[in-house]
Amino acid sequence: MSSKPLITLLTDFGSRDTYVGIMKGVIAKITPDAQVIDLCHEVTPQNVREAAWLLGVSFGYFPEGTVHVAVVDPGVGSKRRALAVRAAGHVFVLPDNGLISYVWRQHEMDLAVSLENEKYFLQPVSATFHGRDIFAPVAAHVAKGVPLTELGPEIKNLDLFDPRRPVIATYSSGTVLEGEIVHVDRFGNLVTNFEQELLPRVPNLRIRVGRRVINGLTATYSQAHTGELIALIGSFGQLEISVVNGDAARKLKASVGDPVIVEVG
Amino acid sequence: MSSKPLITLLTDFGSRDTYVGIMKGVIAKITPDAQVIDLCHEVTPQNVREAAWLLGVSFGYFPEGTVHVAVVDPGVGSKRRALAVRAAGHVFVLPDNGLISYVWRQHEMDLAVSLENEKYFLQPVSATFHGRDIFAPVAAHVAKGVPLTELGPEIKNLDLFDPRRPVIATYSSGTVLEGEIVHVDRFGNLVTNFEQELLPRVPNLRIRVGRRVINGLTATYSQAHTGELIALIGSFGQLEISVVNGDAARKLKASVGDPVIVEVG
Amino acid sequence: MSSKPLITLLTDFGSRDTYVGIMKGVIAKITPDAQVIDLCHEVTPQNVREAAWLLGVSFGYFPEGTVHVAVVDPGVGSKRRALAVRAAGHVFVLPDNGLISYVWRQHEMDLAVSLENEKYFLQPVSATFHGRDIFAPVAAHVAKGVPLTELGPEIKNLDLFDPRRPVIATYSSGTVLEGEIVHVDRFGNLVTNFEQELLPRVPNLRIRVGRRVINGLTATYSQAHTGELIALIGSFGQLEISVVNGDAARKLKASVGDPVIVEVG
Repeated sequence: MSSKPLITLLTDFGSRDTYVGIMKGVIAKITPDAQVIDLCHEVTPQNVREAAWLLGVSFGYFPEGTVHVAVVDPGVGSKRRALAVRAAGHVFVLPDNGLISYVWRQHEMDLAVSLENEKYFLQPVSATFHGRDIFAPVAAHVAKGVPLTELGPEIKNLDLFDPRRPVIATYSSGTVLEGEIVHVDRFGNLVTNFEQELLPRVPNLRIRVGRRVINGLTATYSQAHTGELIALIGSFGQLEISVVNGDAARKLKASVGDPVIVEVG
Repeated sequence: MSSKPLITLLTDFGSRDTYVGIMKGVIAKITPDAQVIDLCHEVTPQNVREAAWLLGVSFGYFPEGTVHVAVVDPGVGSKRRALAVRAAGHVFVLPDNGLISYVWRQHEMDLAVSLENEKYFLQPVSATFHGRDIFAPVAAHVAKGVPLTELGPEIKNLDLFDPRRPVIATYSSGTVLEGEIVHVDRFGNLVTNFEQELLPRVPNLRIRVGRRVINGLTATYSQAHTGELIALIGSFGQLEISVVNGDAARKLKASVGDPVIVEVG
Repeated sequence: MSSKPLITLLTDFGSRDTYVGIMKGVIAKITPDAQVIDLCHEVTPQNVREAAWLLGVSFGYFPEGTVHVAVVDPGVGSKRRALAVRAAGHVFVLPDNGLISYVWRQHEMDLAVSLENEKYFLQPVSATFHGRDIFAPVAAHVAKGVPLTELGPEIKNLDLFDPRRPVIATYSSGTVLEGEIVHVDRFGNLVTNFEQELLPRVPNLRIRVGRRVINGLTATYSQAHTGELIALIGSFGQLEISVVNGDAARKLKASVGDPVIVEVG
């Protein structure tokens, strides 16, 4: 762990309000020397799956010991639990609603506790803003050195979802893999759930999205022409569909959840 | 005060330009060890009332001694004064156009000075960007320890507005309170100017907004169904109108300033 | 240089993804005590000229020794070089695609090197995200004290563009200067490429934009009425066209690249 504690924030709070700023104020009151980094605040409101994916592909770029706060929380104020989880040398502080699912899928969890020790909450706890009242102050205390076991009882049965994986079917004529779009980025690139390892290393790959067919993978944007629709392995090691210097999501009217088919043979 | 000085920024500068980044550069030049936190930069352009409300409900979550810079400044370049104000253990650096009004309403002001000592300005002072040339450098100097009395003469007659409060009328048939929407947040929640203490603690409360009537308060989102229109006490202790996992502003076509009526009896 | 190294980030990555957050994680892993400031992330996708202008007018407000990372990189993955440049007491880490052009125009470059020492990259280097894999880690190493000459060979022939300057024509009837809009800011102000020094200091100046004519310069917004179309010297010392408390870009349907004519006589 670096000398200065590091906390990241991932929420669907957007930028129109002071919600994120207030969370940082709460952290600064408890752990003034913490460095806070915004991971993303423009998660589609209440979209737990999108946030879980962003957290899963991003946290590993931070130093070990980083405390990651994620708050996409449609169940705020209900009986859903709040968690602190230690996995892969990082700590995650988040609602127990599946946000940890991608991390969980790829790494052993060392410890998960249910946040019940109200000593580490901001009082009074509101019914609608646990980012401020529970997750930020708990993360600040963890960053300061409070052990997870101090925060509440260990639990085993987290509320997880299985990230959807491509389905593979083999026919006499060839193989068909059916996956989907998991994220549309700022440039309109369509990130799919095909990880690089899943794709057969053959030249005659066809990728279908909507009514369009893309033949084969391109190594880099620069190997194609402006405006061309291509498929390539993106920066998270997953199949992406792009328009060179353009916006694939707009061109194909595609969005998260739309099917993407890979055919071989 | 924490060892490391803390400065927050609240503006209507948005994110398309480098205005906010430049303010941080100016601060870093003067007080390299200051920590700067963005409170919000998406205030509706020139909307002083919205910014004043955001500042009033947010500053208290920061450590005492924090220096809050607020720049929503339609009068930039005019004779409007620039201020440094000490209140509630915090310092506020902002134009004298009402931005301090919500803070002022809730707290005694200890000291207000008019920023006239040009030694603490960035020279030359432009006609259009006092955030860079006056407010950021003055805040950095204050964070560094320059006393407010060094910045200019004490003043008493600030340019304030009275935050509008609900109007109460009592009839033989019951009581009617007329308030309004003061903020629409990222989720489309309608924050009203009814503070919790103003609402009669009776079960038969009716809340009218537009043509819709909401019966009674709900304690948390989770006690209602997705898509349901509810009223609840939000995280700032004010009456809010929400659509569960939806967008009340869009559903009701409501915006800041629209009336909200509470009826009892 | 201040004791704590300072790094700024200027990109077209927007706020919908975790790209910027990941770059900060990469930096924190290498140089935990670096302070990272966002200059702007809402550059129009792939618009190198806009980013080059923003960098040129902004970097000077930061302390000497600051490391400025700029990533607007339509050629990512191609043979375009990556650079570290020392100029005006600052360091710039960016693709060799013209991003440095405005800085270069105004300042002597002390040293430019081609980033080729892969020891300072994040491995493996992806084909699409050099912000994460090359520019952020190299900037972190520079901030930590690695000399530029360690990063790769010195080069002289950078890929630069000439910022367009107004064209001046003199007639018997007077002088006509033809310039253009270089930036539209959040408020809809139209920043032009007329620097203050270029404008004749005469009272009978006429500024034409679209079908509108503005007579003379106004010193500050406050000298005109709400809704009035005015021309003034903006905060970067360039001619700007504004609607007082309004949006000139919307009112005139104007955008970057549109001509602006200044007539004298």
